[in-house]
Amino acid sequence: MTEPLFDTVCLVGIGHIGSSLARALRKHGLARRLVALEASPAAAAKAVELGVVDRAECDPALVVPGAGLVVVAVPIGAVAEVGAAIAPHLTPGAIVSDVGSVKLAVIRDLAPFIPAGVAFIPGHPIAGTEHSGPESGLADLFEGRWQILTPMPGTDPAALARLSDLWTRIGSMVEIMEPAHHDKVLAITSHLPHLIAYTIVGTASDLESDLAHEVIKFSASGFRDFTRIAASNPVMWRDIFLNNRESVLEVLQRFTEDLTALQRAIRRGEGETLEKRFSETRKIRRAIIDAKQA
Amino acid sequence: MTEPLFDTVCLVGIGHIGSSLARALRKHGLARRLVALEASPAAAAKAVELGVVDRAECDPALVVPGAGLVVVAVPIGAVAEVGAAIAPHLTPGAIVSDVGSVKLAVIRDLAPFIPAGVAFIPGHPIAGTEHSGPESGLADLFEGRWQILTPMPGTDPAALARLSDLWTRIGSMVEIMEPAHHDKVLAITSHLPHLIAYTIVGTASDLESDLAHEVIKFSASGFRDFTRIAASNPVMWRDIFLNNRESVLEVLQRFTEDLTALQRAIRRGEGETLEKRFSETRKIRRAIIDAKQA
Repeated sequence: MTEPLFDTVCLVGIGHIGSSLARALRKHGLARRLVALEASPAAAAKAVELGVVDRAECDPALVVPGAGLVVVAVPIGAVAEVGAAIAPHLTPGAIVSDVGSVKLAVIRDLAPFIPAGVAFIPGHPIAGTEHSGPESGLADLFEGRWQILTPMPGTDPAALARLSDLWTRIGSMVEIMEPAHHDKVLAITSHLPHLIAYTIVGTASDLESDLAHEVIKFSASGFRDFTRIAASNPVMWRDIFLNNRESVLEVLQRFTEDLTALQRAIRRGEGETLEKRFSETRKIRRAIIDAKQA
Repeated sequence: MTEPLFDTVCLVGIGHIGSSLARALRKHGLARRLVALEASPAAAAKAVELGVVDRAECDPALVVPGAGLVVVAVPIGAVAEVGAAIAPHLTPGAIVSDVGSVKLAVIRDLAPFIPAGVAFIPGHPIAGTEHSGPESGLADLFEGRWQILTPMPGTDPAALARLSDLWTRIGSMVEIMEPAHHDKVLAITSHLPHLIAYTIVGTASDLESDLAHEVIKFSASGFRDFTRIAASNPVMWRDIFLNNRESVLEVLQRFTEDLTALQRAIRRGEGETLEKRFSETRKIRRAIIDAKQA
Protein backbone atom coordinates (compact mmCIF):
# COMPACT_ATOMS: atom_id res chain seq x y z
CA MET A 1 0.00 0.00 0.00
CA THR A 2 1.35 3.41 -1.01
CA GLU A 3 0.15 6.97 -0.44
CA PRO A 4 -3.06 7.55 -2.51
CA LEU A 5 -2.43 9.51 -5.72
CA PHE A 6 -5.96 10.93 -5.77
CA ASP A 7 -8.51 11.70 -3.13
CA THR A 8 -11.53 10.74 -5.25
CA VAL A 9 -11.53 8.91 -8.60
CA CYS A 10 -14.75 8.79 -10.62
CA LEU A 11 -15.25 6.02 -13.19
CA VAL A 12 -17.81 6.96 -15.84
CA GLY A 13 -19.17 3.58 -16.88
CA ILE A 14 -18.51 0.69 -14.50
CA GLY A 15 -18.38 -2.15 -17.05
CA HIS A 16 -15.49 -4.52 -17.74
CA ILE A 17 -12.73 -1.91 -18.05
CA GLY A 18 -14.17 0.62 -15.59
CA SER A 19 -14.59 -1.97 -12.87
CA SER A 20 -11.17 -3.50 -13.59
CA LEU A 21 -9.58 -0.08 -13.13
CA ALA A 22 -11.55 0.51 -9.92
CA ARG A 23 -10.39 -2.85 -8.55
CA ALA A 24 -6.79 -2.12 -9.53
CA LEU A 25 -6.86 1.30 -7.86
CA ARG A 26 -8.37 -0.25 -4.73
CA LYS A 27 -5.80 -3.06 -4.70
CA HIS A 28 -2.89 -0.64 -4.91
CA GLY A 29 -4.45 1.97 -2.60
CA LEU A 30 -4.22 4.75 -5.17
CA ALA A 31 -7.53 6.49 -4.37
CA ARG A 32 -9.09 7.31 -0.99
CA ARG A 33 -12.55 7.10 -2.49
CA LEU A 34 -13.91 5.43 -5.63
CA VAL A 35 -17.18 6.56 -7.20
CA ALA A 36 -18.95 5.75 -10.46
CA LEU A 37 -21.32 7.48 -12.83
CA GLU A 38 -23.30 4.68 -14.49
CA ALA A 39 -26.31 4.96 -16.82
CA SER A 40 -27.68 1.53 -15.88
CA PRO A 41 -29.17 1.54 -12.36
CA ALA A 42 -28.71 -2.26 -12.21
CA ALA A 43 -24.98 -2.04 -13.04
CA ALA A 44 -24.57 0.83 -10.55
CA ALA A 45 -26.20 -1.21 -7.78
CA LYS A 46 -24.12 -4.26 -8.68
CA ALA A 47 -20.85 -2.30 -8.55
CA VAL A 48 -21.62 -1.03 -5.04
CA GLU A 49 -22.85 -4.46 -3.91
CA LEU A 50 -19.58 -6.03 -5.10
CA GLY A 51 -17.59 -3.32 -3.33
CA VAL A 52 -15.97 -2.25 -6.60
CA VAL A 53 -16.77 1.41 -5.80
CA ASP A 54 -17.99 3.21 -2.69
CA ARG A 55 -20.83 4.95 -4.49
CA ALA A 56 -22.43 4.69 -7.93
CA GLU A 57 -25.09 7.03 -9.31
CA CYS A 58 -26.91 7.81 -12.56
CA ASP A 59 -26.77 11.56 -11.85
CA PRO A 60 -23.41 13.26 -12.53
CA ALA A 61 -24.11 15.99 -9.95
CA LEU A 62 -23.86 13.35 -7.23
CA VAL A 63 -20.46 11.86 -8.11
CA VAL A 64 -18.44 14.08 -10.50
CA PRO A 65 -17.92 17.18 -8.26
CA GLY A 66 -14.78 16.78 -6.16
CA ALA A 67 -13.24 13.98 -8.24
CA GLY A 68 -9.56 14.66 -8.94
CA LEU A 69 -9.59 12.09 -11.74
CA VAL A 70 -12.52 11.21 -14.00
CA VAL A 71 -12.03 8.23 -16.34
CA VAL A 72 -14.61 7.79 -19.10
CA ALA A 73 -15.07 4.07 -19.84
CA VAL A 74 -18.15 3.87 -22.08
CA PRO A 75 -18.61 2.76 -25.73
CA ILE A 76 -17.27 5.47 -28.07
CA GLY A 77 -20.76 6.31 -29.38
CA ALA A 78 -21.73 7.48 -25.87
CA VAL A 79 -18.70 9.70 -25.25
CA ALA A 80 -20.21 12.98 -26.53
CA GLU A 81 -23.29 12.56 -24.36
CA VAL A 82 -21.10 11.81 -21.34
CA GLY A 83 -19.01 14.91 -22.09
CA ALA A 84 -22.08 17.15 -22.05
CA ALA A 85 -23.34 15.54 -18.84
CA ILE A 86 -20.15 15.74 -16.78
CA ALA A 87 -18.72 19.08 -18.01
CA PRO A 88 -20.71 21.38 -15.65
CA HIS A 89 -19.64 19.29 -12.63
CA LEU A 90 -15.89 19.00 -13.24
CA THR A 91 -13.72 20.46 -10.49
CA PRO A 92 -10.91 22.89 -11.50
CA GLY A 93 -7.56 21.05 -11.39
CA ALA A 94 -9.15 17.71 -12.21
CA ILE A 95 -7.82 15.33 -14.86
CA VAL A 96 -10.22 13.76 -17.38
CA SER A 97 -9.08 10.63 -19.19
CA ASP A 98 -10.74 7.75 -21.02
CA VAL A 99 -10.09 4.18 -22.17
CA GLY A 100 -11.56 4.26 -25.69
CA SER A 101 -10.12 2.17 -28.54
CA VAL A 102 -10.22 5.05 -31.07
CA LYS A 103 -8.48 8.24 -30.00
CA LEU A 104 -9.31 10.80 -32.74
CA ALA A 105 -13.05 10.15 -32.28
CA VAL A 106 -12.86 10.50 -28.49
CA ILE A 107 -10.93 13.76 -28.83
CA ARG A 108 -13.50 15.03 -31.37
CA ASP A 109 -16.41 14.15 -29.04
CA LEU A 110 -15.00 14.96 -25.61
CA ALA A 111 -12.46 17.80 -25.96
CA PRO A 112 -15.07 20.52 -26.77
CA PHE A 113 -16.73 19.94 -23.38
CA ILE A 114 -13.60 20.14 -21.21
CA PRO A 115 -13.55 23.47 -19.32
CA ALA A 116 -10.44 25.58 -18.81
CA GLY A 117 -8.47 24.45 -15.77
CA VAL A 118 -9.21 20.78 -16.35
CA ALA A 119 -6.57 18.58 -18.07
CA PHE A 120 -7.84 16.19 -20.74
CA ILE A 121 -5.47 13.26 -21.39
CA PRO A 122 -6.94 10.56 -23.66
CA GLY A 123 -5.79 7.01 -22.92
CA HIS A 124 -6.20 3.42 -24.05
CA PRO A 125 -5.17 0.36 -22.02
CA ILE A 126 -4.19 -2.57 -24.28
CA ALA A 127 -5.97 -5.12 -22.15
CA GLY A 128 -9.40 -6.66 -21.78
CA THR A 129 -11.32 -9.88 -22.08
CA GLU A 130 -14.47 -10.81 -24.01
CA HIS A 131 -16.59 -10.37 -20.86
CA SER A 132 -18.85 -7.41 -19.99
CA GLY A 133 -20.34 -5.80 -16.91
CA PRO A 134 -19.10 -4.73 -13.45
CA GLU A 135 -18.85 -8.34 -12.21
CA SER A 136 -16.30 -9.18 -14.94
CA GLY A 137 -13.63 -6.73 -13.74
CA LEU A 138 -10.16 -8.01 -12.83
CA ALA A 139 -7.80 -6.17 -10.46
CA ASP A 140 -4.72 -7.44 -12.33
CA LEU A 141 -6.05 -6.89 -15.88
CA PHE A 142 -3.51 -4.15 -16.62
CA GLU A 143 -0.42 -5.81 -15.14
CA GLY A 144 2.34 -6.21 -17.72
CA ARG A 145 0.16 -4.56 -20.40
CA TRP A 146 0.64 -1.31 -22.27
CA GLN A 147 -1.25 1.88 -21.47
CA ILE A 148 -1.19 4.30 -24.42
CA LEU A 149 -1.66 8.00 -23.63
CA THR A 150 -2.28 10.52 -26.44
CA PRO A 151 -2.00 13.93 -24.70
CA MET A 152 -3.25 17.08 -26.48
CA PRO A 153 -0.76 19.85 -27.34
CA GLY A 154 -0.25 22.09 -24.33
CA THR A 155 -1.21 19.50 -21.72
CA ASP A 156 0.06 20.30 -18.21
CA PRO A 157 3.19 18.11 -17.80
CA ALA A 158 2.44 17.63 -14.10
CA ALA A 159 -1.01 16.19 -14.86
CA LEU A 160 0.50 13.87 -17.49
CA ALA A 161 3.16 12.70 -15.02
CA ARG A 162 0.52 12.03 -12.35
CA LEU A 163 -1.68 9.98 -14.71
CA SER A 164 1.36 8.05 -16.01
CA ASP A 165 2.34 7.36 -12.42
CA LEU A 166 -1.11 5.90 -11.71
CA TRP A 167 -0.93 3.45 -14.62
CA THR A 168 2.65 2.49 -13.79
CA ARG A 169 1.69 1.74 -10.20
CA ILE A 170 -1.07 -0.66 -11.29
CA GLY A 171 1.50 -2.54 -13.35
CA SER A 172 1.20 -1.07 -16.86
CA MET A 173 3.93 0.18 -19.17
CA VAL A 174 3.04 3.70 -20.41
CA GLU A 175 3.56 4.73 -24.06
CA ILE A 176 2.98 8.26 -25.37
CA MET A 177 1.63 8.41 -28.94
CA GLU A 178 0.00 10.72 -31.48
CA PRO A 179 -3.76 9.98 -31.60
CA ALA A 180 -3.81 9.49 -35.40
CA HIS A 181 -0.93 7.04 -35.18
CA HIS A 182 -2.69 5.17 -32.35
CA ASP A 183 -5.77 4.70 -34.51
CA LYS A 184 -3.69 3.32 -37.38
CA VAL A 185 -1.78 0.86 -35.14
CA LEU A 186 -4.93 -0.36 -33.42
CA ALA A 187 -6.73 -0.81 -36.74
CA ILE A 188 -4.28 -3.60 -37.55
CA THR A 189 -3.59 -5.05 -34.07
CA SER A 190 -7.15 -4.99 -32.79
CA HIS A 191 -9.92 -3.72 -35.04
CA LEU A 192 -9.16 -5.88 -38.10
CA PRO A 193 -8.67 -9.07 -36.01
CA HIS A 194 -12.03 -8.47 -34.33
CA LEU A 195 -13.76 -7.82 -37.66
CA ILE A 196 -12.30 -11.02 -39.12
CA ALA A 197 -13.26 -13.05 -36.05
CA TYR A 198 -16.81 -11.70 -36.06
CA THR A 199 -17.04 -12.54 -39.77
CA ILE A 200 -15.80 -16.12 -39.60
CA VAL A 201 -17.93 -16.97 -36.59
CA GLY A 202 -20.90 -15.44 -38.41
CA THR A 203 -20.12 -17.43 -41.57
CA ALA A 204 -20.09 -20.64 -39.51
CA SER A 205 -23.33 -19.84 -37.70
CA ASP A 206 -25.07 -19.32 -41.06
CA LEU A 207 -24.28 -22.88 -42.22
CA GLU A 208 -27.05 -25.45 -42.46
CA SER A 209 -27.98 -26.36 -38.87
CA ASP A 210 -26.40 -29.85 -38.90
CA LEU A 211 -23.06 -28.40 -39.97
CA ALA A 212 -23.30 -25.53 -37.48
CA HIS A 213 -23.76 -28.10 -34.72
CA GLU A 214 -20.57 -29.86 -35.81
CA VAL A 215 -18.70 -26.58 -35.93
CA ILE A 216 -19.30 -26.27 -32.19
CA LYS A 217 -18.47 -29.91 -31.53
CA PHE A 218 -15.17 -29.84 -33.40
CA SER A 219 -14.22 -26.24 -32.64
CA ALA A 220 -10.95 -27.26 -30.95
CA SER A 221 -9.34 -27.53 -34.37
CA GLY A 222 -8.83 -23.78 -34.76
CA PHE A 223 -12.28 -22.20 -34.85
CA ARG A 224 -12.67 -21.67 -31.10
CA ASP A 225 -9.70 -19.24 -31.02
CA PHE A 226 -11.84 -16.88 -33.10
CA THR A 227 -14.99 -17.30 -31.04
CA ARG A 228 -13.44 -15.81 -27.92
CA ILE A 229 -12.84 -12.43 -29.48
CA ALA A 230 -16.10 -12.64 -31.47
CA ALA A 231 -17.87 -12.79 -28.09
CA SER A 232 -16.81 -9.23 -27.22
CA ASN A 233 -19.29 -6.43 -26.46
CA PRO A 234 -21.31 -5.77 -29.67
CA VAL A 235 -22.11 -2.10 -28.95
CA MET A 236 -18.53 -1.27 -28.07
CA TRP A 237 -17.32 -2.84 -31.31
CA ARG A 238 -20.05 -1.29 -33.46
CA ASP A 239 -18.84 2.10 -32.21
CA ILE A 240 -15.17 1.30 -32.85
CA PHE A 241 -15.82 0.40 -36.49
CA LEU A 242 -18.05 3.43 -37.07
CA ASN A 243 -15.42 5.71 -35.52
CA ASN A 244 -12.20 4.35 -37.02
CA ARG A 245 -13.66 3.79 -40.47
CA GLU A 246 -10.80 5.01 -42.68
CA SER A 247 -7.99 3.14 -40.91
CA VAL A 248 -10.05 -0.07 -40.70
CA LEU A 249 -11.05 0.04 -44.37
CA GLU A 250 -7.44 0.64 -45.35
CA VAL A 251 -5.99 -2.39 -43.54
CA LEU A 252 -8.99 -4.47 -44.59
CA GLN A 253 -8.08 -3.70 -48.20
CA ARG A 254 -4.54 -5.00 -47.64
CA PHE A 255 -5.87 -8.10 -45.89
CA THR A 256 -8.28 -8.87 -48.74
CA GLU A 257 -5.48 -8.59 -51.30
CA ASP A 258 -3.31 -10.99 -49.30
CA LEU A 259 -6.18 -13.44 -48.84
CA THR A 260 -6.93 -13.36 -52.57
CA ALA A 261 -3.29 -14.18 -53.31
CA LEU A 262 -3.42 -17.24 -51.03
CA GLN A 263 -6.78 -18.28 -52.51
CA ARG A 264 -5.22 -18.15 -55.96
CA ALA A 265 -2.25 -20.24 -54.78
CA ILE A 266 -4.61 -22.89 -53.38
CA ARG A 267 -6.70 -22.96 -56.56
CA ARG A 268 -3.61 -23.33 -58.74
CA GLY A 269 -1.92 -25.81 -56.41
CA GLU A 270 1.11 -23.59 -55.77
CA GLY A 271 2.58 -25.34 -52.73
CA GLU A 272 5.77 -23.28 -52.63
CA THR A 273 3.88 -19.98 -52.29
CA LEU A 274 1.83 -21.39 -49.41
CA GLU A 275 4.77 -22.89 -47.53
CA LYS A 276 6.83 -19.71 -47.87
CA ARG A 277 3.99 -17.55 -46.52
CA PHE A 278 3.23 -19.94 -43.64
CA SER A 279 6.90 -20.02 -42.61
CA GLU A 280 7.17 -16.23 -42.35
CA THR A 281 4.27 -15.90 -39.91
CA ARG A 282 5.96 -18.17 -37.34
CA LYS A 283 8.57 -15.46 -36.72
CA ILE A 284 5.93 -12.96 -35.59
CA ARG A 285 4.66 -15.39 -32.95
CA ARG A 286 8.22 -15.83 -31.70
CA ALA A 287 8.63 -12.04 -31.44
CA ILE A 288 5.40 -11.71 -29.44
CA ILE A 289 6.53 -14.41 -27.01
CA ASP A 290 9.90 -12.65 -26.67
CA ALA A 291 8.09 -9.35 -26.00
CA LYS A 292 6.16 -11.11 -23.18
CA GLN A 293 2.78 -10.18 -24.70
CA ALA A 294 1.72 -13.79 -25.51
CA MET B 1 -2.82 -49.36 -15.75
CA THR B 2 -4.94 -51.78 -17.78
CA GLU B 3 -4.12 -54.83 -19.95
CA PRO B 4 -2.28 -53.63 -23.10
CA LEU B 5 -4.53 -53.49 -26.17
CA PHE B 6 -1.62 -54.09 -28.55
CA ASP B 7 1.69 -55.83 -28.26
CA THR B 8 3.58 -53.42 -30.52
CA VAL B 9 2.37 -50.05 -31.82
CA CYS B 10 4.37 -48.32 -34.58
CA LEU B 11 4.11 -44.56 -35.02
CA VAL B 12 5.09 -43.45 -38.51
CA GLY B 13 6.34 -39.93 -37.92
CA ILE B 14 7.21 -39.02 -34.35
CA GLY B 15 6.39 -35.29 -34.47
CA HIS B 16 3.89 -33.39 -32.34
CA ILE B 17 0.92 -35.73 -32.84
CA GLY B 18 2.89 -38.99 -33.18
CA SER B 19 4.82 -38.36 -29.99
CA SER B 20 1.71 -37.20 -28.13
CA LEU B 21 -0.01 -40.48 -29.05
CA ALA B 22 3.06 -42.49 -28.00
CA ARG B 23 3.11 -40.70 -24.64
CA ALA B 24 -0.62 -41.26 -24.15
CA LEU B 25 -0.33 -44.99 -24.95
CA ARG B 26 2.60 -45.26 -22.55
CA LYS B 27 0.76 -43.38 -19.81
CA HIS B 28 -2.29 -45.64 -20.08
CA GLY B 29 -0.27 -48.86 -20.60
CA LEU B 30 -2.01 -49.66 -23.88
CA ALA B 31 1.04 -51.05 -25.75
CA ARG B 32 3.78 -53.41 -24.53
CA ARG B 33 6.22 -51.86 -26.98
CA LEU B 34 6.30 -48.55 -28.82
CA VAL B 35 8.35 -48.10 -31.97
CA ALA B 36 8.61 -45.35 -34.57
CA LEU B 37 9.44 -45.06 -38.24
CA GLU B 38 10.88 -41.58 -38.68
CA ALA B 39 12.48 -40.03 -41.78
CA SER B 40 14.61 -37.60 -39.79
CA PRO B 41 17.48 -39.37 -37.96
CA ALA B 42 17.70 -36.45 -35.52
CA ALA B 43 14.00 -36.70 -34.60
CA ALA B 44 14.29 -40.50 -34.29
CA ALA B 45 17.25 -40.19 -31.91
CA LYS B 46 15.45 -37.49 -29.91
CA ALA B 47 12.31 -39.63 -29.50
CA VAL B 48 14.35 -42.54 -28.10
CA GLU B 49 16.44 -40.23 -25.90
CA LEU B 50 13.24 -38.74 -24.43
CA GLY B 51 11.85 -42.24 -23.84
CA VAL B 52 8.84 -41.47 -26.03
CA VAL B 53 9.35 -44.78 -27.92
CA ASP B 54 11.52 -47.82 -27.29
CA ARG B 55 13.02 -47.82 -30.76
CA ALA B 56 12.97 -45.42 -33.72
CA GLU B 57 14.38 -46.15 -37.16
CA CYS B 58 14.46 -44.67 -40.65
CA ASP B 59 14.11 -48.16 -42.25
CA PRO B 60 10.57 -49.62 -42.22
CA ALA B 61 11.92 -53.20 -42.27
CA LEU B 62 13.27 -52.65 -38.75
CA VAL B 63 10.07 -51.42 -37.05
CA VAL B 64 6.93 -52.15 -39.10
CA PRO B 65 6.97 -56.00 -39.06
CA GLY B 66 5.18 -57.34 -36.00
CA ALA B 67 3.31 -54.13 -35.20
CA GLY B 68 -0.37 -54.79 -34.47
CA LEU B 69 -1.18 -51.13 -34.99
CA VAL B 70 0.56 -48.70 -37.34
CA VAL B 71 -0.45 -45.03 -37.08
CA VAL B 72 0.70 -42.74 -39.88
CA ALA B 73 1.33 -39.24 -38.50
CA VAL B 74 3.13 -37.35 -41.28
CA PRO B 75 2.08 -34.33 -43.42
CA ILE B 76 -0.51 -35.40 -46.01
CA GLY B 77 1.87 -34.84 -48.91
CA ALA B 78 4.12 -37.63 -47.55
CA VAL B 79 1.37 -40.22 -47.03
CA ALA B 80 1.66 -41.95 -50.46
CA GLU B 81 5.41 -42.39 -50.04
CA VAL B 82 4.89 -43.80 -46.55
CA GLY B 83 2.26 -46.20 -47.91
CA ALA B 84 4.67 -47.59 -50.50
CA ALA B 85 7.42 -47.91 -47.89
CA ILE B 86 5.45 -49.70 -45.16
CA ALA B 87 3.17 -51.93 -47.30
CA PRO B 88 5.63 -54.83 -47.81
CA HIS B 89 6.30 -55.00 -44.06
CA LEU B 90 2.74 -54.98 -42.67
CA THR B 91 1.79 -58.04 -40.62
CA PRO B 92 -1.49 -59.82 -41.49
CA GLY B 93 -4.14 -58.90 -38.92
CA ALA B 94 -2.59 -55.48 -38.29
CA ILE B 95 -4.58 -52.24 -38.23
CA VAL B 96 -3.33 -49.18 -40.13
CA SER B 97 -4.67 -45.80 -39.14
CA ASP B 98 -3.56 -42.17 -39.51
CA VAL B 99 -4.11 -38.72 -38.00
CA GLY B 100 -4.37 -36.59 -41.15
CA SER B 101 -6.57 -33.49 -41.34
CA VAL B 102 -8.02 -34.38 -44.77
CA LYS B 103 -9.58 -37.83 -45.07
CA LEU B 104 -10.42 -38.23 -48.79
CA ALA B 105 -6.81 -37.43 -49.75
CA VAL B 106 -5.36 -39.87 -47.21
CA ILE B 107 -7.70 -42.61 -48.44
CA ARG B 108 -6.72 -41.84 -52.05
CA ASP B 109 -3.00 -42.00 -51.20
CA LEU B 110 -2.87 -44.81 -48.65
CA ALA B 111 -5.68 -47.31 -49.39
CA PRO B 112 -4.13 -48.66 -52.64
CA PHE B 113 -1.09 -49.87 -50.68
CA ILE B 114 -2.94 -51.73 -47.90
CA PRO B 115 -2.64 -55.51 -48.45
CA ALA B 116 -5.51 -57.97 -47.92
CA GLY B 117 -5.76 -59.06 -44.31
CA VAL B 118 -4.80 -55.61 -42.97
CA ALA B 119 -7.56 -53.24 -41.75
CA PHE B 120 -7.25 -49.59 -42.81
CA ILE B 121 -9.21 -47.20 -40.59
CA PRO B 122 -8.51 -43.50 -41.28
CA GLY B 123 -8.68 -41.22 -38.26
CA HIS B 124 -8.29 -37.60 -37.18
CA PRO B 125 -7.85 -36.43 -33.59
CA ILE B 126 -9.30 -32.91 -33.08
CA ALA B 127 -6.40 -31.80 -30.93
CA GLY B 128 -2.97 -30.26 -31.29
CA THR B 129 -0.94 -27.20 -30.51
CA GLU B 130 1.15 -24.89 -32.70
CA HIS B 131 4.34 -26.72 -31.69
CA SER B 132 6.28 -29.28 -33.73
CA GLY B 133 8.73 -32.13 -33.15
CA PRO B 134 8.98 -35.14 -30.80
CA GLU B 135 9.83 -32.97 -27.79
CA SER B 136 6.50 -31.09 -28.11
CA GLY B 137 4.29 -34.16 -27.48
CA LEU B 138 1.81 -34.12 -24.59
CA ALA B 139 0.47 -37.31 -22.95
CA ASP B 140 -2.88 -35.67 -22.20
CA LEU B 141 -3.33 -33.92 -25.57
CA PHE B 142 -6.32 -36.08 -26.54
CA GLU B 143 -8.18 -36.01 -23.20
CA GLY B 144 -11.69 -34.61 -23.58
CA ARG B 145 -11.17 -34.13 -27.34
CA TRP B 146 -12.89 -35.78 -30.29
CA GLN B 147 -11.32 -38.54 -32.36
CA ILE B 148 -13.02 -38.85 -35.74
CA LEU B 149 -12.80 -42.22 -37.51
CA THR B 150 -13.85 -42.58 -41.17
CA PRO B 151 -13.82 -46.38 -41.76
CA MET B 152 -13.97 -47.75 -45.33
CA PRO B 153 -16.97 -49.83 -46.40
CA GLY B 154 -16.43 -53.47 -45.35
CA THR B 155 -14.05 -52.68 -42.48
CA ASP B 156 -13.75 -55.50 -39.94
CA PRO B 157 -16.02 -54.42 -37.03
CA ALA B 158 -13.68 -56.04 -34.50
CA ALA B 159 -10.75 -53.93 -35.73
CA LEU B 160 -12.89 -50.79 -35.59
CA ALA B 161 -14.00 -51.62 -32.04
CA ARG B 162 -10.41 -52.19 -30.97
CA LEU B 163 -9.18 -48.89 -32.39
CA SER B 164 -12.17 -47.01 -30.89
CA ASP B 165 -11.37 -48.62 -27.56
CA LEU B 166 -7.78 -47.35 -27.73
CA TRP B 167 -8.85 -43.74 -28.31
CA THR B 168 -11.51 -43.95 -25.63
CA ARG B 169 -8.99 -45.24 -23.11
CA ILE B 170 -6.66 -42.28 -23.71
CA GLY B 171 -9.58 -39.97 -22.97
CA SER B 172 -11.06 -39.11 -26.37
CA MET B 173 -14.68 -39.24 -27.52
CA VAL B 174 -14.95 -41.24 -30.76
CA GLU B 175 -17.13 -40.08 -33.66
CA ILE B 176 -17.71 -42.12 -36.83
CA MET B 177 -18.09 -40.03 -39.99
CA GLU B 178 -18.10 -40.22 -43.80
CA PRO B 179 -14.71 -39.00 -45.11
CA ALA B 180 -16.26 -36.45 -47.50
CA HIS B 181 -18.36 -35.00 -44.68
CA HIS B 182 -15.29 -34.84 -42.43
CA ASP B 183 -13.43 -32.79 -45.04
CA LYS B 184 -16.34 -30.35 -45.33
CA VAL B 185 -16.69 -29.90 -41.55
CA LEU B 186 -12.96 -29.43 -41.03
CA ALA B 187 -12.75 -26.92 -43.90
CA ILE B 188 -14.86 -24.55 -41.80
CA THR B 189 -13.74 -25.46 -38.25
CA SER B 190 -10.04 -25.71 -38.94
CA HIS B 191 -8.75 -25.05 -42.45
CA LEU B 192 -10.44 -21.68 -43.04
CA PRO B 193 -9.49 -20.35 -39.55
CA HIS B 194 -5.87 -21.29 -40.18
CA LEU B 195 -5.87 -19.67 -43.63
CA ILE B 196 -7.34 -16.47 -42.20
CA ALA B 197 -4.86 -16.43 -39.33
CA TYR B 198 -1.90 -16.99 -41.66
CA THR B 199 -3.21 -14.18 -43.86
CA ILE B 200 -3.72 -11.55 -41.18
CA VAL B 201 -0.38 -12.26 -39.53
CA GLY B 202 1.21 -12.02 -42.97
CA THR B 203 -0.56 -8.73 -43.70
CA ALA B 204 0.78 -7.31 -40.44
CA SER B 205 4.33 -8.51 -41.05
CA ASP B 206 4.32 -6.77 -44.44
CA LEU B 207 3.66 -3.35 -42.90
CA GLU B 208 6.37 -0.72 -42.82
CA SER B 209 8.90 -1.87 -40.22
CA ASP B 210 8.01 0.76 -37.56
CA LEU B 211 4.36 -0.30 -37.67
CA ALA B 212 5.25 -4.02 -37.66
CA HIS B 213 7.24 -3.43 -34.48
CA GLU B 214 4.20 -1.85 -32.84
CA VAL B 215 1.98 -4.72 -33.97
CA ILE B 216 4.13 -6.99 -31.79
CA LYS B 217 4.21 -4.52 -28.91
CA PHE B 218 0.43 -4.01 -28.81
CA SER B 219 -0.61 -7.50 -29.90
CA ALA B 220 -2.62 -8.13 -26.71
CA SER B 221 -5.49 -6.18 -28.25
CA GLY B 222 -6.66 -9.09 -30.43
CA PHE B 223 -3.86 -9.81 -32.88
CA ARG B 224 -1.96 -12.31 -30.72
CA ASP B 225 -4.92 -14.75 -30.76
CA PHE B 226 -4.27 -15.19 -34.47
CA THR B 227 -0.52 -15.56 -34.18
CA ARG B 228 -0.73 -18.77 -32.17
CA ILE B 229 -2.44 -20.72 -34.92
CA ALA B 230 -0.39 -18.94 -37.59
CA ALA B 231 2.69 -20.48 -35.92
CA SER B 232 1.59 -24.02 -36.89
CA ASN B 233 3.72 -26.36 -39.02
CA PRO B 234 4.01 -24.77 -42.53
CA VAL B 235 4.51 -28.04 -44.45
CA MET B 236 1.59 -29.74 -42.75
CA TRP B 237 -0.67 -26.80 -43.58
CA ARG B 238 0.58 -26.44 -47.14
CA ASP B 239 -0.45 -30.09 -47.69
CA ILE B 240 -3.85 -29.61 -46.06
CA PHE B 241 -4.76 -26.72 -48.38
CA LEU B 242 -3.47 -28.52 -51.48
CA ASN B 243 -5.47 -31.64 -50.54
CA ASN B 244 -8.78 -30.14 -49.40
CA ARG B 245 -8.92 -27.53 -52.13
CA GLU B 246 -12.60 -27.67 -53.12
CA SER B 247 -14.03 -27.57 -49.58
CA VAL B 248 -11.65 -24.79 -48.52
CA LEU B 249 -12.39 -22.65 -51.58
CA GLU B 250 -16.11 -23.10 -51.04
CA VAL B 251 -16.14 -21.88 -47.41
CA LEU B 252 -13.64 -19.16 -48.29
CA GLN B 253 -16.13 -17.87 -50.86
CA ARG B 254 -18.84 -17.66 -48.18
CA PHE B 255 -16.45 -15.94 -45.79
CA THR B 256 -15.44 -13.35 -48.40
CA GLU B 257 -19.08 -12.54 -49.13
CA ASP B 258 -19.78 -12.03 -45.41
CA LEU B 259 -16.68 -9.89 -44.96
CA THR B 260 -17.65 -7.75 -47.95
CA ALA B 261 -21.09 -7.18 -46.40
CA LEU B 262 -19.53 -5.97 -43.14
CA GLN B 263 -17.05 -3.81 -45.05
CA ARG B 264 -19.98 -2.19 -46.85
CA ALA B 265 -21.78 -1.59 -43.54
CA ILE B 266 -18.68 0.11 -42.11
CA ARG B 267 -18.21 2.28 -45.20
CA ARG B 268 -21.87 3.36 -45.15
CA GLY B 269 -21.98 3.81 -41.37
CA GLU B 270 -24.72 1.20 -40.87
CA GLY B 271 -24.44 0.67 -37.11
CA GLU B 272 -27.51 -1.52 -36.80
CA THR B 273 -26.18 -4.10 -39.27
CA LEU B 274 -22.89 -4.29 -37.35
CA GLU B 275 -24.45 -4.56 -33.91
CA LYS B 276 -26.89 -7.27 -35.04
CA ARG B 277 -24.10 -9.34 -36.57
CA PHE B 278 -21.82 -8.93 -33.53
CA SER B 279 -24.61 -9.99 -31.17
CA GLU B 280 -25.29 -13.25 -33.02
CA THR B 281 -21.70 -14.46 -32.77
CA ARG B 282 -21.72 -14.34 -28.94
CA LYS B 283 -24.16 -17.26 -28.89
CA ILE B 284 -21.69 -19.53 -30.68
CA ARG B 285 -19.05 -18.88 -28.03
CA ARG B 286 -21.59 -19.74 -25.33
CA ALA B 287 -22.41 -23.03 -27.11
CA ILE B 288 -18.71 -23.96 -27.32
CA ILE B 289 -18.27 -23.29 -23.62
CA ASP B 290 -21.36 -25.41 -22.89
CA ALA B 291 -19.94 -28.22 -25.06
CA LYS B 292 -16.74 -28.08 -22.95
CA GLN B 293 -14.54 -27.50 -26.02
CA ALA B 294 -13.46 -23.98 -24.99
